[in-house]
Amino acid sequence: MDAQRDEYFMRLALEEAHAAYAEGEVPIGAVLVLGDEVIARDHNRIEQLSDPTAHAEMLCLTAGTSYLRSKYLPQAALYVTLEPCPMCAGAMGWAQLGKVVFAARDPERGFLRYTPSLLHPKGKWYQGPFGEEALELLQRFFRERRV
Amino acid sequence: MDAQRDEYFMRLALEEAHAAYAEGEVPIGAVLVLGDEVIARDHNRIEQLSDPTAHAEMLCLTAGTSYLRSKYLPQAALYVTLEPCPMCAGAMGWAQLGKVVFAARDPERGFLRYTPSLLHPKGKWYQGPFGEEALELLQRFFRERRV
Repeated sequence: MDAQRDEYFMRLALEEAHAAYAEGEVPIGAVLVLGDEVIARDHNRIEQLSDPTAHAEMLCLTAGTSYLRSKYLPQAALYVTLEPCPMCAGAMGWAQLGKVVFAARDPERGFLRYTPSLLHPKGKWYQGPFGEEALELLQRFFRERRV
Repeated sequence: MDAQRDEYFMRLALEEAHAAYAEGEVPIGAVLVLGDEVIARDHNRIEQLSDPTAHAEMLCLTAGTSYLRSKYLPQAALYVTLEPCPMCAGAMGWAQLGKVVFAARDPERGFLRYTPSLLHPKGKWYQGPFGEEALELLQRFFRERRV
């Protein structure tokens, strides 16, 4: 049941990552979910906006809190194709985000390297489905740029 | 020379913090400087924007990179009235910010608690002037809300 749910929402996040890829952005996508409703979905827009903070997660958190007119998202879940960086995890902490599910691990830049925890004390996280697909897309992106 | 410079720009950051106070926002202000030019200045706008990521530092980084049409700020210095949180320090890392100077320490929520460092490897930081003034303003803000 939860596995199906995770697959459904992570597939949407992957679609966002593919949209980023098509736009020449590092292909990472995210979807913010409240109950069964997607309240925000977006992808990296760093190049488009010339803004190094325009990560998929930040854009979803800002859009979601704006939509709900609330600073806090304790009931919401964020699905993202790559383990978030410390900036994004810190933003989830401030938003009191209920849950973050990511597809691929990011051992070098991911938030799990950092102590103390960057999430809210009640914030949950786990690795969800499609890790290989998400990573393959990122590797393809960087391979093409290196040539 | 540098001390005078730091006082000048931190005073502007304090002015921003006072503007936040007047608007009912947690009074923290920041100024982004390139050479002798202020390229962005702002304060906390969390309440106004219903956005928990709308910290003074994030707003300055986004405005500054947008103004320069560059993702990177290696020559820029950010003056901020409180030690940045990990979200903002992570954003400074992505922006490759050259230097951050803060007035008051934030031992509980500041980025200096976190390892490994959240700034860019070449990013410098130090505590500048007006720490007491910045802290006094924050304490006054929270004292008035507690009554």
